[in-house]
Amino acid sequence: MYPPSIQKLINIFSKFPTVGPRTAARFVFYLMKLSKEETDEISQSISTIREKIKLCSFCFKPFEPARNASHSDAGGGEGELCEICKNPVRDKTLLCVIEKETDLIPIEKTQKYHGRYFILGGTVSRLRKEDMEKLRIKELQERIQGSPIEEIIIAVNPTTEGEATALYLERVLKPLNLPAGRQVIKITRLGRGLPVGGELEYADEETLGSAFESRK
Amino acid sequence: MYPPSIQKLINIFSKFPTVGPRTAARFVFYLMKLSKEETDEISQSISTIREKIKLCSFCFKPFEPARNASHSDAGGGEGELCEICKNPVRDKTLLCVIEKETDLIPIEKTQKYHGRYFILGGTVSRLRKEDMEKLRIKELQERIQGSPIEEIIIAVNPTTEGEATALYLERVLKPLNLPAGRQVIKITRLGRGLPVGGELEYADEETLGSAFESRK
Amino acid sequence: MYPPSIQKLINIFSKFPTVGPRTAARFVFYLMKLSKEETDEISQSISTIREKIKLCSFCFKPFEPARNASHSDAGGGEGELCEICKNPVRDKTLLCVIEKETDLIPIEKTQKYHGRYFILGGTVSRLRKEDMEKLRIKELQERIQGSPIEEIIIAVNPTTEGEATALYLERVLKPLNLPAGRQVIKITRLGRGLPVGGELEYADEETLGSAFESRK
Amino acid sequence: MYPPSIQKLINIFSKFPTVGPRTAARFVFYLMKLSKEETDEISQSISTIREKIKLCSFCFKPFEPARNASHSDAGGGEGELCEICKNPVRDKTLLCVIEKETDLIPIEKTQKYHGRYFILGGTVSRLRKEDMEKLRIKELQERIQGSPIEEIIIAVNPTTEGEATALYLERVLKPLNLPAGRQVIKITRLGRGLPVGGELEYADEETLGSAFESRK
Repeated sequence: MYPPSIQKLINIFSKFPTVGPRTAARFVFYLMKLSKEETDEISQSISTIREKIKLCSFCFKPFEPARNASHSDAGGGEGELCEICKNPVRDKTLLCVIEKETDLIPIEKTQKYHGRYFILGGTVSRLRKEDMEKLRIKELQERIQGSPIEEIIIAVNPTTEGEATALYLERVLKPLNLPAGRQVIKITRLGRGLPVGGELEYADEETLGSAFESRK
Repeated sequence: MYPPSIQKLINIFSKFPTVGPRTAARFVFYLMKLSKEETDEISQSISTIREKIKLCSFCFKPFEPARNASHSDAGGGEGELCEICKNPVRDKTLLCVIEKETDLIPIEKTQKYHGRYFILGGTVSRLRKEDMEKLRIKELQERIQGSPIEEIIIAVNPTTEGEATALYLERVLKPLNLPAGRQVIKITRLGRGLPVGGELEYADEETLGSAFESRK
Repeated sequence: MYPPSIQKLINIFSKFPTVGPRTAARFVFYLMKLSKEETDEISQSISTIREKIKLCSFCFKPFEPARNASHSDAGGGEGELCEICKNPVRDKTLLCVIEKETDLIPIEKTQKYHGRYFILGGTVSRLRKEDMEKLRIKELQERIQGSPIEEIIIAVNPTTEGEATALYLERVLKPLNLPAGRQVIKITRLGRGLPVGGELEYADEETLGSAFESRK
Repeated sequence: MYPPSIQKLINIFSKFPTVGPRTAARFVFYLMKLSKEETDEISQSISTIREKIKLCSFCFKPFEPARNASHSDAGGGEGELCEICKNPVRDKTLLCVIEKETDLIPIEKTQKYHGRYFILGGTVSRLRKEDMEKLRIKELQERIQGSPIEEIIIAVNPTTEGEATALYLERVLKPLNLPAGRQVIKITRLGRGLPVGGELEYADEETLGSAFESRK
């Protein structure tokens, strides 16, 4: 129904997260109303992202290295750390494992966590091999062996998928060989309880049971 | 539009919780299709409730006194206790204050709480005098002074109204004069955290902050 | 979990249309807070409905016969007509077949229909015999043969169930033998089109096609 | 919280229709996972749209002119017609005025309309001057005066905004001076009625009234 060049862009936008073909069509018609300067700015911003943004060599958080830093590190761009991992105030004995980049923002906003992060890159459901291979398990094991970590907080969603992922992480992290002298690492999970605005009457048993246990 | 006798019953049902005029009309037409035996059973069940169900003299939970019991207690029907308050296994040093009858069911289902309850009878919003007077504050104070209670768990919804109610309860319960020798009563609230099925990315700061603090 | 007399009433309310066990429990606790006068009024209103409300002998609409009328008609209470069927201004050549009592109200509110109604008493899905037997088909055929009807408007919901019911009605009404001299009856259905507040972009093909055909 | 180059792209995507900052962030992280070839393809497709897609000189529908055509028409690229306007089978006496590009698709799918279109470019609410100036009113008047149009179908959404737009169109189109000999133009609107899947009981009066009037 649409001309091929429009249909092609609709197909591209349909692959964006949360976007269906109808919304993709609206994106295309929106773009067609922009000036050349505006569409050029979009293309430019997309390629800037590719050039300027690097993934932190410790936690895999996307970040924009400072100009000076990138000069001095020129030979070893791969070894750069993001502003959180580089921050000397952050507690290096804590490591919070999260599924994806956007999970970091709400945790930082709580101002209750002052350790470092590790972005796992996905979740597993039903422990399928192909899902597991997408996770940065080997990298996580290397970080744990190479840093003075004492507690790993598995901060995944309390959903079925998140549970499967947490179980899998516990299974691969517990038997980890630590360098001599390193103390046993504690593996914890986020507390369950009633969320702000929730209603007791509609809470499931596990959530409400945890809310009783963590009362204070 | 409806005949007066139908309209009258629609008005009555419209006062039932969650029922609007359209649903009330559907109730009336449903009743009209029942046999005389069936509608008589409804009326009968409603008056049975009035006759058989008593409110527990400690916690205000509605319950049906056992026949024998009600005979032996004939002289003091008002003093009867529900099956939870009467249960010798229940921990009498714990008191869980809940807003309404239906909040008790999900808590019992968790099997994590083994103390007694107290049904407050409502919530307050903005601490208005008329709201406060509907709550069983005086009765709650009497229970606390007359029982070996060591911890009061304020188990209200973590909503704005629930928060206002909890603050009000803390204000009226903290200065309570206890009999000589009684230890100071601890007032606690249910733990906040991520509910089962929740998503970290959409959690509010307070909920997520509590989830970090109560990690385990 | 609830005492037997409460559980029994919860079960009764759970059978009311749109009511689940949780809402039924709220109804019971609501009733328990009413005075004896108030619960007596409910029981009284339910039995009044049984006594005062009759079904119209033509259209099956529930109505409350006027006192005088019911005296004079004492011998033949079954033959009484509702205020719509009795109204001499109503066009007796039109018959609007509706599924249930509550469908009549919105049609009357449009003030665009001035004929009589016939309440079918249900819908059929997949033309199952047990569903068809619940409909007042025989009575509908009698009304058509006994009245000067020229158009039958099948005013069922434009849903899959409504469509099946309309098809079934057309099948049983078309071959109907009419008294000699009676003209052929027209069978119509409500027009399809865009509802107020609808959006063209999300309309299905049939709805939008009808909207084009009935443009004016 | 995000690096400036990421934040800039989030801001750009936040201006896309239906996209908020959270979804915009997900778009950016999605883009960051693509290969250079894939992001280049997106930028390329966006600029292709700018180059290849033209707006039809009659109806303003975006279309991709055929290569040959664009050669032969080289001198008058502005005068090119889309495949619908060029189609000799289309009825030139009918003109369907729609708000936006995406409204054309569902109408074509009905296969009930065989005339031409005119994309108005927006709606007016409350007849504010700045809204009205965005609409292609002058162009619409020119099309009407220059074509053998006999009926204008105002196919806007049956919402408050759509109603205001339709009223405004009627006001500006009715007094239009037509060339001598041209017959009076009929202005129509899409029919109202029950949509497929709708329920009679919840229909508003206007929708249901129209459904009765357009019964068939």
